[in-house]
Amino acid sequence: MNLTSMQHNKVTVSVIGASGYSGAELVKLLMKHPGIIIDELYAHTQAGKRFTELYPAIPCDKTFQTYSGQTDSDVYFLALPHGEALQLVPGIVKAGKKVIDLSGDFRLTSTAEHKHFYGGDKSAEDVLQYGMPELFRDEIAGSTAISNPGCYATSIILGLAPLFRGGMAGLEVESVNVTAVSGISGAGRSAKLELSFSEMSGNMRAYKVGKHQHTPEIMQALGTSATDPSFRFVMTPMIAPYVRGIYSVLNVRLASPVALESIRELYAEFYASAPFVRLRDGVTEVSHVAYTNFCDVSLAFESDGSLVVITAIDNLMKGAAGQAVQNMNLMLGFDETTALL
Amino acid sequence: MNLTSMQHNKVTVSVIGASGYSGAELVKLLMKHPGIIIDELYAHTQAGKRFTELYPAIPCDKTFQTYSGQTDSDVYFLALPHGEALQLVPGIVKAGKKVIDLSGDFRLTSTAEHKHFYGGDKSAEDVLQYGMPELFRDEIAGSTAISNPGCYATSIILGLAPLFRGGMAGLEVESVNVTAVSGISGAGRSAKLELSFSEMSGNMRAYKVGKHQHTPEIMQALGTSATDPSFRFVMTPMIAPYVRGIYSVLNVRLASPVALESIRELYAEFYASAPFVRLRDGVTEVSHVAYTNFCDVSLAFESDGSLVVITAIDNLMKGAAGQAVQNMNLMLGFDETTALL
Amino acid sequence: MNLTSMQHNKVTVSVIGASGYSGAELVKLLMKHPGIIIDELYAHTQAGKRFTELYPAIPCDKTFQTYSGQTDSDVYFLALPHGEALQLVPGIVKAGKKVIDLSGDFRLTSTAEHKHFYGGDKSAEDVLQYGMPELFRDEIAGSTAISNPGCYATSIILGLAPLFRGGMAGLEVESVNVTAVSGISGAGRSAKLELSFSEMSGNMRAYKVGKHQHTPEIMQALGTSATDPSFRFVMTPMIAPYVRGIYSVLNVRLASPVALESIRELYAEFYASAPFVRLRDGVTEVSHVAYTNFCDVSLAFESDGSLVVITAIDNLMKGAAGQAVQNMNLMLGFDETTALL
Amino acid sequence: MNLTSMQHNKVTVSVIGASGYSGAELVKLLMKHPGIIIDELYAHTQAGKRFTELYPAIPCDKTFQTYSGQTDSDVYFLALPHGEALQLVPGIVKAGKKVIDLSGDFRLTSTAEHKHFYGGDKSAEDVLQYGMPELFRDEIAGSTAISNPGCYATSIILGLAPLFRGGMAGLEVESVNVTAVSGISGAGRSAKLELSFSEMSGNMRAYKVGKHQHTPEIMQALGTSATDPSFRFVMTPMIAPYVRGIYSVLNVRLASPVALESIRELYAEFYASAPFVRLRDGVTEVSHVAYTNFCDVSLAFESDGSLVVITAIDNLMKGAAGQAVQNMNLMLGFDETTALL
Repeated sequence: MNLTSMQHNKVTVSVIGASGYSGAELVKLLMKHPGIIIDELYAHTQAGKRFTELYPAIPCDKTFQTYSGQTDSDVYFLALPHGEALQLVPGIVKAGKKVIDLSGDFRLTSTAEHKHFYGGDKSAEDVLQYGMPELFRDEIAGSTAISNPGCYATSIILGLAPLFRGGMAGLEVESVNVTAVSGISGAGRSAKLELSFSEMSGNMRAYKVGKHQHTPEIMQALGTSATDPSFRFVMTPMIAPYVRGIYSVLNVRLASPVALESIRELYAEFYASAPFVRLRDGVTEVSHVAYTNFCDVSLAFESDGSLVVITAIDNLMKGAAGQAVQNMNLMLGFDETTALL
Repeated sequence: MNLTSMQHNKVTVSVIGASGYSGAELVKLLMKHPGIIIDELYAHTQAGKRFTELYPAIPCDKTFQTYSGQTDSDVYFLALPHGEALQLVPGIVKAGKKVIDLSGDFRLTSTAEHKHFYGGDKSAEDVLQYGMPELFRDEIAGSTAISNPGCYATSIILGLAPLFRGGMAGLEVESVNVTAVSGISGAGRSAKLELSFSEMSGNMRAYKVGKHQHTPEIMQALGTSATDPSFRFVMTPMIAPYVRGIYSVLNVRLASPVALESIRELYAEFYASAPFVRLRDGVTEVSHVAYTNFCDVSLAFESDGSLVVITAIDNLMKGAAGQAVQNMNLMLGFDETTALL
Repeated sequence: MNLTSMQHNKVTVSVIGASGYSGAELVKLLMKHPGIIIDELYAHTQAGKRFTELYPAIPCDKTFQTYSGQTDSDVYFLALPHGEALQLVPGIVKAGKKVIDLSGDFRLTSTAEHKHFYGGDKSAEDVLQYGMPELFRDEIAGSTAISNPGCYATSIILGLAPLFRGGMAGLEVESVNVTAVSGISGAGRSAKLELSFSEMSGNMRAYKVGKHQHTPEIMQALGTSATDPSFRFVMTPMIAPYVRGIYSVLNVRLASPVALESIRELYAEFYASAPFVRLRDGVTEVSHVAYTNFCDVSLAFESDGSLVVITAIDNLMKGAAGQAVQNMNLMLGFDETTALL
Repeated sequence: MNLTSMQHNKVTVSVIGASGYSGAELVKLLMKHPGIIIDELYAHTQAGKRFTELYPAIPCDKTFQTYSGQTDSDVYFLALPHGEALQLVPGIVKAGKKVIDLSGDFRLTSTAEHKHFYGGDKSAEDVLQYGMPELFRDEIAGSTAISNPGCYATSIILGLAPLFRGGMAGLEVESVNVTAVSGISGAGRSAKLELSFSEMSGNMRAYKVGKHQHTPEIMQALGTSATDPSFRFVMTPMIAPYVRGIYSVLNVRLASPVALESIRELYAEFYASAPFVRLRDGVTEVSHVAYTNFCDVSLAFESDGSLVVITAIDNLMKGAAGQAVQNMNLMLGFDETTALL
């Protein structure tokens, strides 16, 4: 399959769970994609409504349908609450269609950790290729089904991967201390008092302190473990009063000193062929990546010799829909950046 | 009853409906009032919870109770959804206690208009003294039960009262065109998708266009009528992404030209003894009145000779709790500004 | 010139004044346009800096240059402060290149009004084709130089044009009363205390009350006059705490009643071939058009028979850069929506 | 001096540097204080303007004066840029008047650190009693001149003091990793592009990464040192899009495990007599302390055994003006909470 042939015979794509913020962002991106056409948008609670009733700023004239096992499209994105994709993906894969699932259902290899963090049972086979192109570009290109990373996980893994999966002589990480601040869209399109404008304007808060929901996914992707006695990882998630973005401050304690310039070279080399990771000279900001698929990375040393890695992404783009389309591009042989720049 | 005796024998005050934003603002003000003590806080949906669980910034250590007809306190504020006060006020009044009701239940003299706009039946007796001190200071001081004005109505009536209730030779109003923008707390403490931070950040909208919910209250207080064929009144309410405040632009067409200086004198004289209405030299802003009980008024002429009156209030203060405490001060003989400056 | 030939021989485009918000938005749009290539970005105060230093979210790797009369590109956009384009446009036009000017320099046909509102002298020839495609599509397509409308003017003209330039039997407008609320980006990229986050969060304000800066442009485009004794037009501009958008409420008094359905038909017909004007069923919101080139129009009647037209645009898109690209598309023979959907 | 005598003979108070946000907050608090009267407000750049021109929400009818060595008032607050108070305080102290300085000029005992972080020379005598009542209540009560803590320092010291200045058997802190997020008012009342609403809405950023400006003050107050090889302290300051508040997440590594209940008891005991420090059951939020003088403290353990202390303050209240008034109350013998609850 190549791009030229596809322009005459475009790939058909459907989105299951198209009424949430990630689903809508998918629709917006897919509309700009020259190689695909949008087939169906599924959203059972909104079935019968037009997409533009919910999202007037995105001029897609489809009507939400109820999904009941259809496998007509070439590609299916699933943007469903955790637990629901587990039932649907096998049927789509069996029908020979491509799948990109944005939930946590197929991420963790440990069924015990999955049960602990997501609350449901799954079998050991319920794991799909992890869809982070910067780490697994070739594997994704050769896959038919992908598990798209979580938003916090994306911002943290991309900030640490050169240290853990790249590495260099003399570099040993003792501990990582993360504070990650999410925009409020990360909590989804939902009616909750604690997410109302009146409650969140002028406000910020930490939540799930000490509960590490995202740790297993991060550890798995980095190829390490938070329970390794020689390595300590803690994370405090927060929300602040902006809609889009995740801003992560990763304080990394190294076993012995390393020059900042060496660290920069390590990162630069690791991401040399990654079109969406930008090693920044100064300190990045949420507004530098909002509404883009970039993951910005800033590096600095504290006076005690610990490394500070700061990353910024848009949680709905590189943290969800943008990365999902990036994965689709790789799976279908499009340029990785199609519809994303 | 006078202030000195009350300081030795303070007035006891209870709030029915103390868990909403207006109720909580009442609690905050009452805590600062040297002449009263807070007796009970009633909120049936929150009964058993401590007030500070809902409002940690307001250090009142009371626990919400269920109201079941108590009349032990000297004064009762009611900050309930429209329709509920209608049942409770008569019992409290009958027990000889003072009442200030913040709902719309007792505002309209026309039972037909009440039914049209609030949806319930009430009898012709269900009207209390309208609690706008700038218009009815003496009547309020002599009353035992008060109907506190609505927030939009307050911002509009105070902007127009000198023209309608003051007046001067040669001044005749042909029409008034109002756009009034409310902060989002005006919609109350509630879990609604359309009021979520993700939906309202970066957003504003009009609502109830052409439906004039607040018109009868305004007409009644001004002593005029929107259906008077010689006078036209229209109003478009909107919400914008801030929490507290109502900003009203009142475009007033006059039958014949009047000098701005004469208009200013009219307003200055009308509000000469009103401690919370400020006639401003420049254009007021929401931040000039937020968290205060002031109603700011700015005056200007358009080039076509129409008068532009701009008013700003804090919807929870002068638009609700602040004005209610101002009324209580008058009823009890305190200085009108006690706990409000 | 047609699209196919241009894809092999793309149009070169430069932006003079590319460092402000409108200029940057132009760059973002031009990057997405398949038929053009960006030539130079001029910004004398930022000369030597890379564009992405100022706008990291827009990955254009150009460096700002100082403009000194270059005429090498096929098309020039000018996004300069009022007064500066007046000096530059004639040279570019003389060199046979196309120009789209976003300032107010070439909008008003009356030199007296221009002097009054913009403060500078210009000759009667300093007027370019007014670039509002919904009114002047053919004229724009045949022009080499365009004056792009102002943001407030766009939102108001599009809300009123069917009444004034379309019209129907029995429809006579007596007066129009406008309140228009702009996002803060409308004030430009500038360091001003009164536009700081600390001052504008939780705030809104009117400004230039009674000064009608935008009135002449609106009157001229509508083909009427605010000083016509039989027609009255007043406008109050405001800013509210959001970045992008203009929300205009236009209260229109008609000489005699007209059915809402007839008004809707008039608007629908007037905008039948306008891809960016959407006649909405309900009440539009700023978020419905933010980051898009749409102008949404909602229609309702007040109980007194006056018509309420509400329009919403993104001030940097349909109010500036988006409309400018729309004009360029028409001038160059591209589809009107290229790079804009 | 006692409260009763003062009510008949109130203390006179002046503010030098009353036009900034901290100065204005001081004025607001002093207006509510029953034991003092405001004497003069000094602000040389605003001299001649009325205070309410700058702060219409605070109805103080004083006019700004130029300070030229006056020592007539009983108490002087200085809320000046760093470096200016150094020249003024000695004269006021010499005249026998009380001083509370909100700048960094008199905080650090190390003249070398002062020079490094604040850039100016000072002598070893230029240190005043550190005004943190929770640590130094008696010393403050007996002082005539006070150096008021910094806002970040307050939020961090109060979160750590029980561990460092209280302590318990078996408790040893190995390292502290801080991320602290400030509201934008912390940057002062100033016209800067990077603090404009258009730039900061939807944005957040870290700054001064690895530069530790506030570390020496924190170390000094805790009685420890960041350069102690057995103890590591790092801090990343950030700003997020809200006006008031500092939210600090303090990740504390302990040498050996301690029960959370013991930690809670340690904190509860340490702050038993501190009216403004609240040990919270759940996770505190910025809105829980905004516009109050509280410092909220939440405690939790991470799964790796590290302690997470989260604190929240209002940077203008407990982080500046509120704490300054708290200090004044102690110095003058008022109840510590006067004008602050």
